[in-house]
Amino acid sequence: MKIIIIGATGTIGKHVVNTLQGQHEIIKVGSKSGDILVDIGSVDAIKKMFETIGSFDALVSVAGTGHVGPLHTMTDVDFRKTVDSKLMGQVNLVLIGQHYINPSGSFTLTSGSLAHEPVLQTASLSSINAAVDGFIRGAAIELKNAVRINSVSPTVVEESPDYFPFFPGTIPVSMEAVAAAYNKSVLGAQTGQVYKIW
Amino acid sequence: MKIIIIGATGTIGKHVVNTLQGQHEIIKVGSKSGDILVDIGSVDAIKKMFETIGSFDALVSVAGTGHVGPLHTMTDVDFRKTVDSKLMGQVNLVLIGQHYINPSGSFTLTSGSLAHEPVLQTASLSSINAAVDGFIRGAAIELKNAVRINSVSPTVVEESPDYFPFFPGTIPVSMEAVAAAYNKSVLGAQTGQVYKIW
Ligand SMILES: NC(=O)c1ccc[n+]([C@@H]2O[C@H](COP(=O)([O-])OP(=O)(O)OC[C@H]3O[C@@H](n4cnc5c(N)ncnc54)[C@H](OP(=O)(O)O)[C@@H]3O)[C@@H](O)[C@H]2O)c1
Ligand SMILES: NC(=O)c1ccc[n+]([C@@H]2O[C@H](COP(=O)([O-])OP(=O)(O)OC[C@H]3O[C@@H](n4cnc5c(N)ncnc54)[C@H](OP(=O)(O)O)[C@@H]3O)[C@@H](O)[C@H]2O)c1
Repeated sequence: MKIIIIGATGTIGKHVVNTLQGQHEIIKVGSKSGDILVDIGSVDAIKKMFETIGSFDALVSVAGTGHVGPLHTMTDVDFRKTVDSKLMGQVNLVLIGQHYINPSGSFTLTSGSLAHEPVLQTASLSSINAAVDGFIRGAAIELKNAVRINSVSPTVVEESPDYFPFFPGTIPVSMEAVAAAYNKSVLGAQTGQVYKIW
Repeated sequence: MKIIIIGATGTIGKHVVNTLQGQHEIIKVGSKSGDILVDIGSVDAIKKMFETIGSFDALVSVAGTGHVGPLHTMTDVDFRKTVDSKLMGQVNLVLIGQHYINPSGSFTLTSGSLAHEPVLQTASLSSINAAVDGFIRGAAIELKNAVRINSVSPTVVEESPDYFPFFPGTIPVSMEAVAAAYNKSVLGAQTGQVYKIW
C-alpha cells in the first residue's frame, strides 16, 4: 500500500510510521520535516501535495493544533486557530484527497478525548475534536468507490508529559495502543468509526 | 427572567417563544425580524446587541445555517459557510455573552441529530453539529458564577416538510418535544448536557 502520513515526525506520528513501514510504501509529510513539506492550513499547498504524490491507498493525518487558554478571555480569533488547523486542515485533506485516492482506499484523521472528557482551557479543542468525529461519520456515507474514513481519538499519550498537568486523574495511554488504532483504520475494513483510546 | 432568543421567528424558535412568553421577559432577535436585529455572523454586531440589551438571564440560540451539497464537490469555502454561521455564530454568542450574563444564567445552543445520524449531502452539518455539542461540554466546566450551558439536538421537526426527503425512515419530532427541551435547559439546573430529541 502507498500510505501518506501527515505529521509523520510527531509524537504520535512517528509511532504510526514505525508500525506501518517495511510492509508499505510510506510518504512522510510535515510542515517542516518529512519527504514532502506541506502546511495543511493552506488549500493550495494540499492540492500541490496530491499533484506531486499522485494516486495513493491511505492517508493518515496525525497533525493539527489548537488554541489553549481560558474560556473567559477566548475570542473568535483564538477559536478560529483551532478551526483552521485541526478542523479545516484535516477536512481539506479529505475534500481534496478524495479526488486522488485509489478505490478501496482510506482516510484516518485524528480527534481526541477532549470532545467528551473536557479539561480546563481547551473548549475550542473539545468542540473541534467532536467536529472531526462528526465529519468522518458524515463523510463515510458519501465517499465513492468503497473509500473508507475513520478517526482516532486518543487521550493524553505517555510520551507527552508536558500535557499531563492539564489532565488530572487521567492515566496516559501507551504509544502502542494509539498506533494500533491507526493500523486498525488503515488495514481494517470499517468505516465511519471513531476509535477511542481512553 | 430576561431571556434573549436568537432565531425567535424561526420554525423552532417561535415555539420556544410560545412556551416561555407570559412568564418571562422575552427579547426576540433575528437578522431580519425581531425586537433587535443581529447577524450572528458578525462579531461586532453581537457585541452591539449585548451592549444594547445589557445584562440578561438566559440566551437561547435557535439560529445558524449550513451548506447542503454532495461531499464529492464540497470545497473549503462551502464547508466554512457552516463553520461561520452555525458554529462561530453560536460560539461567539457565548464567548461575548459570558461578559454580560447574570450569575446563574444559562446559554442554550442548537446542534442537531446529523452529528450522529448522518444523511447524504450534509457532511459539514454532521461535523458542525457535533462541534456545537463538544463546545458546550468544554465551556460548561469553565463558565463562571454558576452560569450554565447546554445544547438541544433535534432531528427533523414536523413543521419542516421540505427536509423530509433528506431523512428517509426518520419520524419527524413534534414541536412540543423540541420546545420542551429548550425549557428544560433554561428553567432546569443541568449544565454540559446535549438534549437529544431523536
Ligand atoms: N500528544 C497527545 O497526548 C495527544 C492526545 C490526543 C490527541 N492528540 C492529537 O494528535 C495530533 C498529533 O499530536 P502530537 O502530540 O503527535 O503532535 P506533535 O508531536 O506536535 O507532532 C505534530 C506533527 O504534525 C506536523 N505538523 C504540524 N503542523 C503541521 C501543518 N500545519 N501541516 C502539516 N504538518 C504539520 C509536525 O511536523 P512539522 O513540525 O514538520 O510540521 C509533526 O510531524 C494532534 O492533532 C493532537 O491534537 C495528541
Ligand atoms: N427545522 C428542523 O427540522 C431542524 C432540525 C434539527 C436542527 N435544526 C436547527 O435548528 C436551528 C433553527 O432551525 P429552523 O428550522 O427553526 O430555522 P428557520 O426556520 O430558518 O429559522 C431561523 C431563525 O434564525 C434567524 N436567523 C437566521 N439567520 C440569522 C443570523 N445570521 N443572525 C441572527 N438570526 C438569524 C431567522 O430570523 P431572520 O430571518 O430574521 O434572520 C429565524 O428566526 C438551525 O440551527 C437548524 O440547523 C433544525
